[in-house]
Amino acid sequence: MSILVEFAMFPTDKGESVSKYVSRIIKMIDESGITYKLTPMGTVFETETMDEAIEILKKAYEQLEHDCSRIYSTVKFDIRKNRSKRLTQKIKSIEEKIGKEVKK
Amino acid sequence: MSILVEFAMFPTDKGESVSKYVSRIIKMIDESGITYKLTPMGTVFETETMDEAIEILKKAYEQLEHDCSRIYSTVKFDIRKNRSKRLTQKIKSIEEKIGKEVKK
Amino acid sequence: MSILVEFAMFPTDKGESVSKYVSRIIKMIDESGITYKLTPMGTVFETETMDEAIEILKKAYEQLEHDCSRIYSTVKFDIRKNRSKRLTQKIKSIEEKIGKEVKK
Amino acid sequence: MSILVEFAMFPTDKGESVSKYVSRIIKMIDESGITYKLTPMGTVFETETMDEAIEILKKAYEQLEHDCSRIYSTVKFDIRKNRSKRLTQKIKSIEEKIGKEVKK
Repeated sequence: MSILVEFAMFPTDKGESVSKYVSRIIKMIDESGITYKLTPMGTVFETETMDEAIEILKKAYEQLEHDCSRIYSTVKFDIRKNRSKRLTQKIKSIEEKIGKEVKK
Repeated sequence: MSILVEFAMFPTDKGESVSKYVSRIIKMIDESGITYKLTPMGTVFETETMDEAIEILKKAYEQLEHDCSRIYSTVKFDIRKNRSKRLTQKIKSIEEKIGKEVKK
Repeated sequence: MSILVEFAMFPTDKGESVSKYVSRIIKMIDESGITYKLTPMGTVFETETMDEAIEILKKAYEQLEHDCSRIYSTVKFDIRKNRSKRLTQKIKSIEEKIGKEVKK
Repeated sequence: MSILVEFAMFPTDKGESVSKYVSRIIKMIDESGITYKLTPMGTVFETETMDEAIEILKKAYEQLEHDCSRIYSTVKFDIRKNRSKRLTQKIKSIEEKIGKEVKK
């Protein structure tokens, strides 16, 4: 089983710049040992179970809840049986079909 | 605390029509007793804690996991302290500002 | 052709409450004559072409761009050939499968 | 002005594997000359105007419309005045705050 998750989470009561808050979440993910990739619009990570994926989302929320009055978050799940290592595999599959390397 | 969640979840290995699968999730939500609204693009529900919200999402996934090989889901959270009943309140607030009833 | 769009758009540089800004967008949509539904997490509307759908999104952006320094938006499209009136039809299809009316 | 867009677009009437269809969109983006990054869950690109961003989304749709009966798409916009090159800058800002390089 491969659970791919792309998510963004940030406070909306702190004005225009929120990287101070978002960096807490990225630090937690980086230290968690999970397989992830930071993108300019969120974080993509992969787990083997739904419980693990949800645990990361809960921990992300815990980084903000004590000092943020309003939090917005978007999450996308792509869940596929009998697969693994899709964090790299999905992009490779696209590159094979196009016949060249893409920007990543 | 008010956790507003909008989410959609559906299999992508079952062809063009997926209402048979989606209706399992809506049935579960309807029977759960939670405050919710079905929209043409997903379901909006409100809980008082993040744990309750996540419990609903896990149960939604359980409706599909046994017979779907690939599942896609999008989730949006709007979390706000010191608020409640925003499932109706947010729309009322917009209507007050516009000065007329909107379609809902 | 039926283009169903669910979207939310709001400034993130204006603090916790943004209904003053969001209501401009809802007012524009309400006056446009388009078929729509306001939900607690966004607006769902239906058009017959992609061009019409995109025109609405551009006009939404125009309501905010002059006095907002940072704007966040999420959009979901569900595009289906040989269909129409899905703003009501999708929910009816779910209700038929469950065998009862749902909250909407 | 910096318009950052993260989007995914795929047919839902073609069964479990859709990389054949998605690769058409990535090929178009790669050949367009636009600044982009492919992620395992979508594509992130940056433009200077909303019109350019929307043009890319329309062209993505054109890659699928002729032979797909149902298409699903999610799009996120992060629009910020007086900024540029955020495709790399946002991640750098997070790394500075954490004090180390992250996976990207």
